[in-house]
Amino acid sequence: MISAAIVGGTGYTGVELIRLLSDHPKVTIDLLTSRSHAGTRADEVFPSLRRVSNLVFSDMDEATFSALEQCDVVFFATPHGVAMQHAQRLTKAGAKVIDLAADFRLQSLQEFETWYKHEHACPELLKDAVYGLPEVTREALKTANIVGNPGCYPTTAILGLKPVIEQQNQADERLIDERIIIDAKSGVSGAGRKADISLNFAEAADNFKAYGVTGHRHLPEIEQGVELLLASKHAQRIRFVPHLVPMIRGMFSTIHLELTEAGCGIDWQQQFEDCYADEVFVDILPKGLYPDSRSVRASNFLRIAVYQNNDRRELTILVTQDNLVKGAAGQAVQSMNVVLGLEEYLGLSQIPIVP
Amino acid sequence: MISAAIVGGTGYTGVELIRLLSDHPKVTIDLLTSRSHAGTRADEVFPSLRRVSNLVFSDMDEATFSALEQCDVVFFATPHGVAMQHAQRLTKAGAKVIDLAADFRLQSLQEFETWYKHEHACPELLKDAVYGLPEVTREALKTANIVGNPGCYPTTAILGLKPVIEQQNQADERLIDERIIIDAKSGVSGAGRKADISLNFAEAADNFKAYGVTGHRHLPEIEQGVELLLASKHAQRIRFVPHLVPMIRGMFSTIHLELTEAGCGIDWQQQFEDCYADEVFVDILPKGLYPDSRSVRASNFLRIAVYQNNDRRELTILVTQDNLVKGAAGQAVQSMNVVLGLEEYLGLSQIPIVP
Amino acid sequence: MISAAIVGGTGYTGVELIRLLSDHPKVTIDLLTSRSHAGTRADEVFPSLRRVSNLVFSDMDEATFSALEQCDVVFFATPHGVAMQHAQRLTKAGAKVIDLAADFRLQSLQEFETWYKHEHACPELLKDAVYGLPEVTREALKTANIVGNPGCYPTTAILGLKPVIEQQNQADERLIDERIIIDAKSGVSGAGRKADISLNFAEAADNFKAYGVTGHRHLPEIEQGVELLLASKHAQRIRFVPHLVPMIRGMFSTIHLELTEAGCGIDWQQQFEDCYADEVFVDILPKGLYPDSRSVRASNFLRIAVYQNNDRRELTILVTQDNLVKGAAGQAVQSMNVVLGLEEYLGLSQIPIVP
Amino acid sequence: MISAAIVGGTGYTGVELIRLLSDHPKVTIDLLTSRSHAGTRADEVFPSLRRVSNLVFSDMDEATFSALEQCDVVFFATPHGVAMQHAQRLTKAGAKVIDLAADFRLQSLQEFETWYKHEHACPELLKDAVYGLPEVTREALKTANIVGNPGCYPTTAILGLKPVIEQQNQADERLIDERIIIDAKSGVSGAGRKADISLNFAEAADNFKAYGVTGHRHLPEIEQGVELLLASKHAQRIRFVPHLVPMIRGMFSTIHLELTEAGCGIDWQQQFEDCYADEVFVDILPKGLYPDSRSVRASNFLRIAVYQNNDRRELTILVTQDNLVKGAAGQAVQSMNVVLGLEEYLGLSQIPIVP
Repeated sequence: MISAAIVGGTGYTGVELIRLLSDHPKVTIDLLTSRSHAGTRADEVFPSLRRVSNLVFSDMDEATFSALEQCDVVFFATPHGVAMQHAQRLTKAGAKVIDLAADFRLQSLQEFETWYKHEHACPELLKDAVYGLPEVTREALKTANIVGNPGCYPTTAILGLKPVIEQQNQADERLIDERIIIDAKSGVSGAGRKADISLNFAEAADNFKAYGVTGHRHLPEIEQGVELLLASKHAQRIRFVPHLVPMIRGMFSTIHLELTEAGCGIDWQQQFEDCYADEVFVDILPKGLYPDSRSVRASNFLRIAVYQNNDRRELTILVTQDNLVKGAAGQAVQSMNVVLGLEEYLGLSQIPIVP
Repeated sequence: MISAAIVGGTGYTGVELIRLLSDHPKVTIDLLTSRSHAGTRADEVFPSLRRVSNLVFSDMDEATFSALEQCDVVFFATPHGVAMQHAQRLTKAGAKVIDLAADFRLQSLQEFETWYKHEHACPELLKDAVYGLPEVTREALKTANIVGNPGCYPTTAILGLKPVIEQQNQADERLIDERIIIDAKSGVSGAGRKADISLNFAEAADNFKAYGVTGHRHLPEIEQGVELLLASKHAQRIRFVPHLVPMIRGMFSTIHLELTEAGCGIDWQQQFEDCYADEVFVDILPKGLYPDSRSVRASNFLRIAVYQNNDRRELTILVTQDNLVKGAAGQAVQSMNVVLGLEEYLGLSQIPIVP
Repeated sequence: MISAAIVGGTGYTGVELIRLLSDHPKVTIDLLTSRSHAGTRADEVFPSLRRVSNLVFSDMDEATFSALEQCDVVFFATPHGVAMQHAQRLTKAGAKVIDLAADFRLQSLQEFETWYKHEHACPELLKDAVYGLPEVTREALKTANIVGNPGCYPTTAILGLKPVIEQQNQADERLIDERIIIDAKSGVSGAGRKADISLNFAEAADNFKAYGVTGHRHLPEIEQGVELLLASKHAQRIRFVPHLVPMIRGMFSTIHLELTEAGCGIDWQQQFEDCYADEVFVDILPKGLYPDSRSVRASNFLRIAVYQNNDRRELTILVTQDNLVKGAAGQAVQSMNVVLGLEEYLGLSQIPIVP
Repeated sequence: MISAAIVGGTGYTGVELIRLLSDHPKVTIDLLTSRSHAGTRADEVFPSLRRVSNLVFSDMDEATFSALEQCDVVFFATPHGVAMQHAQRLTKAGAKVIDLAADFRLQSLQEFETWYKHEHACPELLKDAVYGLPEVTREALKTANIVGNPGCYPTTAILGLKPVIEQQNQADERLIDERIIIDAKSGVSGAGRKADISLNFAEAADNFKAYGVTGHRHLPEIEQGVELLLASKHAQRIRFVPHLVPMIRGMFSTIHLELTEAGCGIDWQQQFEDCYADEVFVDILPKGLYPDSRSVRASNFLRIAVYQNNDRRELTILVTQDNLVKGAAGQAVQSMNVVLGLEEYLGLSQIPIVP
């Protein structure tokens, strides 16, 4: 069995990792750490884990650290800035590091420090870190030691845009205008498990709002995804506006593209289906069907619908995922499977919960 | 006292009209009709009206009809196609007609029949009907006999775009690109009070989706608003995608515009504030503040924030309203006040409900 | 105009007081205080108040305090323990004090100190304070200087039990068994406006739980209501279990009583209707109708249904109110009206919001 | 592999059965029927099943019926009255029948016909049918051909009361008073998947109410559970009041018992733990912990807390489950496992979804 550890397991991505890895046929969670809850059983913090897990949170002391070095894979479900403190030592010891925070997402040190207001502890490791989006970076992941697990919004944006950018890369001319509008919506769990009045039920329920209107940390990550990962031949200008939806889980991105005349000539439905024909978790809906977020709830699926209106030169791409699964913990497990040479779907066969 | 009637008071706009008009200092509701609930007290259908209203639903028979003719104003809170059957007779009798459905919204007969799949019963009245958006059509409303109360989405779109289109009309050149993206979100009450599995709590809660992706009836109304009402000097191409939010009330439209170089030179915050300086119900938020839908819940306010990013040539307009008040019944009462020469805010001073 | 002040207006009862008093035809809010938000406009904390109120929070300094002394009535929407620090000085200056916290609810000093773990600052004032439940204590309120505004649960419990206890008081024998089960349910706003993980949307939504199972501060208050206020001839043993419902506002108490043989002989529907025949805000539903919490949302109504099953000797009393209105701020305004000799319904004519 | 069929798979229990059985290592779903959706793929009705299931709904014609006869087990996720039409023929052919509706729940024909207003089609089979509550009827299930799957509320009531009734059965005297109050609360999915205005989001959200106050079909089933299944030595009088909670899934029953003096002498915490020591799915929380419904969401766990207050002679039992899993489809699979001699937990190892 593969030995896994989760550093910082008291947030939503932590408990989701526990849920998914407990179901994984080839992995055992051997270590769980939390500074704030050291000595506490995981099922005391999350009674949902009663009868599921006997794990106890360890403090992040030297003994724990030595134990982490013995693990095959260490997940960091911590705030930004933690994984980068420990990545070097752990990878030296042979453990694979998968960070669910932002430490290893951005290749550009400057972008990282601008958006996260944090000096990077190991800039020299950045270039070795692999962005953990298997549908885009699968090959690189196979030999990765450090994985930067994507942000939730960028996952929907990059996977939603991939078939378009790739098609345009193959064309002689622009198929879409340079301006890309990503109007994204997230459930409240995306904000994490923390005491914050604005996240209270009485504030967030029966309410809808935009946030990060002037700029959101996921923008440079989306831009990196389009430029670097998808190797876009043409510059694209991305406008990203996220919104908060009164639901627990779920993410929905509406991507608005303007087609050029050449772009109108493409059968985009076909292109999307071809692009993801071999992917287990990316589901292109048949023409005329549009996804709702509950169709992926608690599962690692990401569903995409594409609507093409040549008269109005509009291409509308609708992408939905569970922000905590394909948008976080599920994607991390999927990357782990690739990194460790396992079948990619292992531990990720949960069926969406409806209703 | 002004004598008002509500035809079809068993839907959400009907009960909201009852709530608002019961609070109106110069109006009494003298008649309430419903085919399906004839003979039933309104407070049996809506126990919230117990101790508020003693009204009983009348059937739509000849006696009722004669009584309607005696009213000063008749609101139609009915499905599309009802008001147009009765408008002629009622206006001849001297009653003002305010239709909360779509019969008198579109000036173009062809657009109406295309989108509503309904032959119009009185096309000759269309040209006399006034679109009931006081912030745009106040003057015309003062002498109107028939008011077509705007759709909820068009209200946010047209009022959100008004300062931009008007500024552009005064300019020598385009300030914004021709393409306008309206990514709109509505609470579930917008779908009306009807038995429909897809509206069930267990389906709509903890869920988010787009709908009307291939075309929505409010699109031609928004286009009419931009072209006809705002007299746009330049053609604009509008993409409108509505979404369903798991909240009861509330509507939020995110309008994405691309600024031209000339458009970057405008101080849009100032332009928005100037445009609505004299309006009671339209509230331009100060720079840096962004609205949430609960800040207008159960009130007739519509709040707008504008964010300008010259580097990226983006103008983002955020508009929120209560879909049942400023988006429906409140707007109808506001128009009634104008039509009848009353102070515009009468009966509409409800303070938003928070939390 | 009557001059009112609100001490501590940044919580949910504070903003609700602002909403209600702003609508009151004979009151102006002249002062609003908050230590944490001194100098901030109220509508910055609550954008729902934009265009409604220009008030700015004052710090609780000596100048403010002197200004408070000039007010006719001072509401304390503060945590437990604040009002009792200031009540003496304010009442000496002639201001009426209405505390929405618990400082003046319990007549028994010992019960207060046991349940609130707080030494009482002015035990000598307790006996002069009047419990602000007009339907029970109206006469005493007319001359009160200090009002202890009831807890939300006790309001439902005491008003739900009043017709039963009063009937039993007039009877020769017990009509109900000594054991009273109050199984109560509250919306999340009842927990106040505070940063607390357990109140987060992602924790409280789609979730239901009991709390205070081993004892809740509202129990002694309910007991006091039954014993002292209703002067129960027979001892009653009350079991009170509150639950948290994933809704913003609303409270629903299910009271389970066992009828004695004599109790089976009573027409309880009639007794409930008679008991509250003259009350504006207490609405006894006709036989066969059962209330839902939304039928009172955002209004000062409290609705009661009573179901009598003589075969099983069961009397079931269902009581619903908006926890922030009749359960808090509305009740405080109602008491103020009584204290100041105004019509009791002034400022409280808001119609419930449906849907 | 065991061959299973689901008759009527378009409701919530149907789709939940598909979810659970698709995860079952020893079962395949070979047949899915629906009159209304014959010929439609299951994943068209429930897009959550895309990439999970290729099943197509068959009509209930003779060919389908013959195919059903070949199955090892046939689940009826149909309305009341369907399973009893087919049970005889199917069991004769050797298939096990598990009805998720009420046809085989009540042993008393008269109770069935009184509460369900339906003549029973095969009263002679009733005595052979086994009530499918493994924690109570495991032995009988092992040889059962027809299983009546319990109602959701009765599952919580009977399992919550079992340790008490069994203890009392062993005692010389009453441990609890004869009156039992079951104040139960259910999520909206419990009402099924049907078009009904009262279930609409805009009606059920932010709302709480009691229903079935005058009598609910689950009452005779709870009484049967206490009397027949638990063989209660003493008569108990049960008062059952269900409520509707604005959440999708989840059920919470608060059971109020009055302890006799002898009952005060029992260590109930210990008794509950002993009673369920060997059960996989029934989790007795440690003293001082109280369950919330989300701790079992989407899983087959049922969690119980017991609180004993000898001073007030109160025993409070809190029981929570997912109404669609342990309260319906999960329980049916658990019973199937027992009937077919499989390990009881197979296909039921889903971990609760938090948040």
